[in-house]
Amino acid sequence: MTDERIKSLLRVVPDYPVKGIMFFDVTTLFKNGECFEELVTRISNLYKDKGITKVAGIESRGFVAGAAVAARLGAGFVPVRKPGKLPADTLKESYNKEYGTDSIEIHSDAIGPDDVVLIHDDILATGGTAAAAIRLVKQFHPKAVYVNFIISITDCPRTAEIPSDVPVTALLELAEK
Amino acid sequence: MTDERIKSLLRVVPDYPVKGIMFFDVTTLFKNGECFEELVTRISNLYKDKGITKVAGIESRGFVAGAAVAARLGAGFVPVRKPGKLPADTLKESYNKEYGTDSIEIHSDAIGPDDVVLIHDDILATGGTAAAAIRLVKQFHPKAVYVNFIISITDCPRTAEIPSDVPVTALLELAEK
Repeated sequence: MTDERIKSLLRVVPDYPVKGIMFFDVTTLFKNGECFEELVTRISNLYKDKGITKVAGIESRGFVAGAAVAARLGAGFVPVRKPGKLPADTLKESYNKEYGTDSIEIHSDAIGPDDVVLIHDDILATGGTAAAAIRLVKQFHPKAVYVNFIISITDCPRTAEIPSDVPVTALLELAEK
Repeated sequence: MTDERIKSLLRVVPDYPVKGIMFFDVTTLFKNGECFEELVTRISNLYKDKGITKVAGIESRGFVAGAAVAARLGAGFVPVRKPGKLPADTLKESYNKEYGTDSIEIHSDAIGPDDVVLIHDDILATGGTAAAAIRLVKQFHPKAVYVNFIISITDCPRTAEIPSDVPVTALLELAEK
């Protein structure tokens, strides 16, 4: 499946969740079996030689392709969740949002020093959540950390820096405007 | 992997989210690559001859194995979400909870009359969410509907009935007490 075909299947919702934002709705990629297979295969192929042992998917759109890639690679799946959603002991990391701060959590026993972790989310916009997820995963001192997105929004200002030692991939680059 | 081995990997959290509830934490099954593979293979094998075209995973723990099974079966993945989380037009269904009501949504264009739908969630407890998900999926008039859980809690009173025309499977049966 070509990039153009995937882009043609993507729904773009204007003014969601707030006015002025063009929302890229990946659910229309997921619901198409052929397209979903294409996404999972492309991501898995990017990482099949990296020895990935855990895929950490960011709540909750990052759970979808993240879990399917974990299964494809024979890796475990680790949810990165909003505060209070995980039932056992967690490690936490906070990050700035446009108004105030937010935080994310991973179970304290979810990742170990022998793990090679692929963080996955659907969209790279400001980078705030991804940068926090990287700091959070690094608290576990894994052997290596990678980050993948389905879509990178090229014209969204990156307000948080992704550290240069963490390789980043995105299947598609799209502009909002 | 045996049932006993899977059960030994399951974390049970007492008094979560409220006192008196024994919470079965499937994240400890997902984080183990071998166990996650076993779950996905077992579920996929149950449905490989049913012509499943869409797996509908219930937010958000149902996204994990649900999405991996969708990819394994070559099906699309459809998120069943809490109100206000889906960006485009939705169909809705409400259900009673212990205090008040809740509702779930699916994008209006996510399922069609030619689809064969597998609804997936991690745990069958009261059946309230699953029964609502079945009513919701039936609003789309698909060819057939199936339901799968990783765990059925055998001693939880079923307050909502799963209709007899919808076949239900669970990989494991566990008692809370």
